[in-house]
Amino acid sequence: MEKTTAILLLSCPDQKGIVAGISNFISEHNGNILDAAQYSVQPESMLFMRVEWDMDGFALACDELEDAITPLVKRFGMKWTIHFSDYIPKMAIFVSRHIYCFHDLILRHQMGEFRAQIPLVISNHLDMKPLADHFGLPYRHYPITRENRAEQEKKQIAELEREGVDLVVLARYMQILSGEFVGRYHDRIINIHHSFLPAFAGGSPYQQAYDRGVKIIGATSHYVTQTLDEGPIIAQDVIKITHKDSVDNMKLKGKDLERTVLAKAVRLHLEHRILVYGSKTIIFD
Amino acid sequence: MEKTTAILLLSCPDQKGIVAGISNFISEHNGNILDAAQYSVQPESMLFMRVEWDMDGFALACDELEDAITPLVKRFGMKWTIHFSDYIPKMAIFVSRHIYCFHDLILRHQMGEFRAQIPLVISNHLDMKPLADHFGLPYRHYPITRENRAEQEKKQIAELEREGVDLVVLARYMQILSGEFVGRYHDRIINIHHSFLPAFAGGSPYQQAYDRGVKIIGATSHYVTQTLDEGPIIAQDVIKITHKDSVDNMKLKGKDLERTVLAKAVRLHLEHRILVYGSKTIIFD
Amino acid sequence: MEKTTAILLLSCPDQKGIVAGISNFISEHNGNILDAAQYSVQPESMLFMRVEWDMDGFALACDELEDAITPLVKRFGMKWTIHFSDYIPKMAIFVSRHIYCFHDLILRHQMGEFRAQIPLVISNHLDMKPLADHFGLPYRHYPITRENRAEQEKKQIAELEREGVDLVVLARYMQILSGEFVGRYHDRIINIHHSFLPAFAGGSPYQQAYDRGVKIIGATSHYVTQTLDEGPIIAQDVIKITHKDSVDNMKLKGKDLERTVLAKAVRLHLEHRILVYGSKTIIFD
Amino acid sequence: MEKTTAILLLSCPDQKGIVAGISNFISEHNGNILDAAQYSVQPESMLFMRVEWDMDGFALACDELEDAITPLVKRFGMKWTIHFSDYIPKMAIFVSRHIYCFHDLILRHQMGEFRAQIPLVISNHLDMKPLADHFGLPYRHYPITRENRAEQEKKQIAELEREGVDLVVLARYMQILSGEFVGRYHDRIINIHHSFLPAFAGGSPYQQAYDRGVKIIGATSHYVTQTLDEGPIIAQDVIKITHKDSVDNMKLKGKDLERTVLAKAVRLHLEHRILVYGSKTIIFD
Repeated sequence: MEKTTAILLLSCPDQKGIVAGISNFISEHNGNILDAAQYSVQPESMLFMRVEWDMDGFALACDELEDAITPLVKRFGMKWTIHFSDYIPKMAIFVSRHIYCFHDLILRHQMGEFRAQIPLVISNHLDMKPLADHFGLPYRHYPITRENRAEQEKKQIAELEREGVDLVVLARYMQILSGEFVGRYHDRIINIHHSFLPAFAGGSPYQQAYDRGVKIIGATSHYVTQTLDEGPIIAQDVIKITHKDSVDNMKLKGKDLERTVLAKAVRLHLEHRILVYGSKTIIFD
Repeated sequence: MEKTTAILLLSCPDQKGIVAGISNFISEHNGNILDAAQYSVQPESMLFMRVEWDMDGFALACDELEDAITPLVKRFGMKWTIHFSDYIPKMAIFVSRHIYCFHDLILRHQMGEFRAQIPLVISNHLDMKPLADHFGLPYRHYPITRENRAEQEKKQIAELEREGVDLVVLARYMQILSGEFVGRYHDRIINIHHSFLPAFAGGSPYQQAYDRGVKIIGATSHYVTQTLDEGPIIAQDVIKITHKDSVDNMKLKGKDLERTVLAKAVRLHLEHRILVYGSKTIIFD
Repeated sequence: MEKTTAILLLSCPDQKGIVAGISNFISEHNGNILDAAQYSVQPESMLFMRVEWDMDGFALACDELEDAITPLVKRFGMKWTIHFSDYIPKMAIFVSRHIYCFHDLILRHQMGEFRAQIPLVISNHLDMKPLADHFGLPYRHYPITRENRAEQEKKQIAELEREGVDLVVLARYMQILSGEFVGRYHDRIINIHHSFLPAFAGGSPYQQAYDRGVKIIGATSHYVTQTLDEGPIIAQDVIKITHKDSVDNMKLKGKDLERTVLAKAVRLHLEHRILVYGSKTIIFD
Repeated sequence: MEKTTAILLLSCPDQKGIVAGISNFISEHNGNILDAAQYSVQPESMLFMRVEWDMDGFALACDELEDAITPLVKRFGMKWTIHFSDYIPKMAIFVSRHIYCFHDLILRHQMGEFRAQIPLVISNHLDMKPLADHFGLPYRHYPITRENRAEQEKKQIAELEREGVDLVVLARYMQILSGEFVGRYHDRIINIHHSFLPAFAGGSPYQQAYDRGVKIIGATSHYVTQTLDEGPIIAQDVIKITHKDSVDNMKLKGKDLERTVLAKAVRLHLEHRILVYGSKTIIFD
């Protein structure tokens, strides 16, 4: 039996007594802090904190917590979210025709790496349907043309809402989402880009890397914002290459990077380890 | 003007209220926590914590702190040390005839990477004397033979005591220290071993690596204990090699690893970021 | 249409004129060298070479090559093998109950990363059968007990022979193969071990790594020899960990390493890029 | 006694018989090939080759080689250079006020890592003079202002010519060289840039990296061309960072990268392992 924990993520102007205030609040209600980390950024003087405690024996029920914490929130001017580990987040996967990121995600899901359900797989193609079927995942096919794009996206959003999806993962989904879509799932859409951003943003990054003659290639997972490839970066990794690596070879090597970097970002998000601050992420791992 | 901070390192059995207790203690005395991190290890159920706060405006003077914290220490059964950033630790470097780690340390020292003074360089050879002289570092020459080993070590210890040395760094010092020496500077002697321990402990690790045909070589910095190459590991890094790398090539590549891995360990120690627990280290970075 | 190439792997005592001898032989028969690499090891003074040329327009048919090259072979005392790219090697996968390496291999196979057929999946359990079925791979179940081990292995070998298997990949197969099996598939059985060998050979390497408190963990793919975990190393990689990583976390991180390191070794073998020399490998990549 | 070797670097349109032609030429004159590597790039169909052989017993003297190889050169349309290991290249170091790359280079030089002489250190400041003096290196001070730039550069070039300098290394030299200077030392000026190019070209790359919130930083060594930070890349490396790394911390971590990446590029150049093709390098290592 795994124990239920609460995870509080907060940000506020840095000032004396915040850590004490939070830890007292938990302690007074008989909670045991399992993990806590904070970070303050200068010169902005902002504090960011993640604290996790055991709900076993905790004096407040989940729905009493908001009221109880309000005085503290007001005193310090906190922005906060709270998450309970007995809620299993819902993750939708968007995919086009590249199999490897998608396959990797669902294999990891099956092995228990992600604390998530997958109520929905959405694609503009039918290629991945047999695989989704094999793993028992509902597959929705929304072919996209220039004409039907807006309409199809509306239907996709309706699906996401109906299922109560918490996180959208773009596993090499080759369509650009509208500003409305992105705005609605602000900091809840994760994309994988096959370069070490900001180098080689946009299309064909491996071809760009080949043309420039770099000696390393990379992959970047980030939250999606309205400006392409400029969202807050969650995770990055690189691998060395040589002049002998053709574009096809780079793609081959890059696949391994893309899979692990995307999976890492998804895991960090699902474990509530990410705070977004401006165009950056603070990762409590 | 850099501000003075206090750093508290502690370990105790894990229990409710420790984080609150510590942060309250600091908060009540008008301290502002700048950084705090804790880690609890299971199933031993031990808690380790590092907390750093601003001494500016803090209600207790350095020498009042011990008395004030005693009730908390007793209540939770804490083992603790405290460090103030306005004390500059004293570091002695032991070196034999390999220049690169020694040179690297003193260059970093000169560039301000280490918060430390170097009151003493000790060597069983004279090779490094001109370099030490150039950098204005006191150089003591203790040639070692089988016969004079015990006697020379006594003199070295006397020097360390006289200078009030806090940390001994073995920058490729090719003599084995006695149990007495090691015991006296428990968790305060850092060594660099040129392999990814526990692989290739003992002599000629690059030759061992060559003979085994590994595809990576490494370096390990660790605290020295009475059993050779088995002390708590502080930092490790590796580099890839191929069949084409001769033992000499490995030495060349390894030098860069050894320098950065040793420097990292020294920096972590000087910033009071290491807690030793059994045969392991907990690194708060 | 991909072109057919010939790949010659050879070793012989180093002496003048070998490279010229080989390249002349190819040139005289109207072959175009696409890639060539050699390596000579000192002080043994042995030369190793891999040369690949285009068979299009080459004056000798595959079955004429052996006779034609004989004078050269005798002159230089060469040991050699030749491979033609229009032959697709046959690879058998042995697996127990861990899914990730197995799944990864067959996904890569499906994406065309391996120039190989998979005529046989052999397991001592039934767990992986549904997956093998989904990918259309013949699955043979040989439960192993202390009593039936020798007998079952005989049957496995008979299967391998019947299918003409060229390479056996142990994808976390948890049984130790007999000396006879290993001898018969000398330098043709690839295993993945979940540590950076020679550190943490034997069982539970992640537990061993945890107990020792290392700051990096690794994975090693190697040819299987009669001495456990001591065969020639083909590929290794590592990942950094911290004191916060539990054994379970190490397993999670290690899975990604194991998958990529095993896949790399399989690819190198299938592309005839490995020469074994004593207890080491020479990798022409 | 180290033996003298010849290193031939060549490029030409790919065609049958080149490798045979070259190895025959060496073999016929009684040379023993120690190392050879080639690479052909598609679809341009260009071949690049590096071959090294023992001059001991070779039938041609250095100055007879050019005539002897001419028929081969004409037949295949080769561009070529030849280098003999008994000539020690002359390397000038340009430095401003950052010590670490400069210090690292001269320490490596002293340890014998570079097959080079250093007849000249050139700086627009006096800061590094004591260090150069300590190592016995001639130091020339050319302060640069907007007005005297062109004139001072002329003097620098005159110094380089007088000393017969083969390679110019910019060890964090903070002045931009004129097109004339760059043109005259085409593919013979190596710079270190403190980012993984093409990301963060131009000034303050660590600040740029901080602002963008990347999770890795890097360093790039490249040949200098007339367009800033766009020359052919020789070596790159990266290190992971987190949100906790301030710009100052990045500088600290980056220093280690810059040193090793610059040293690697210098070593590759001095060992004649680099061929430049368009805006890229081919590295034979």
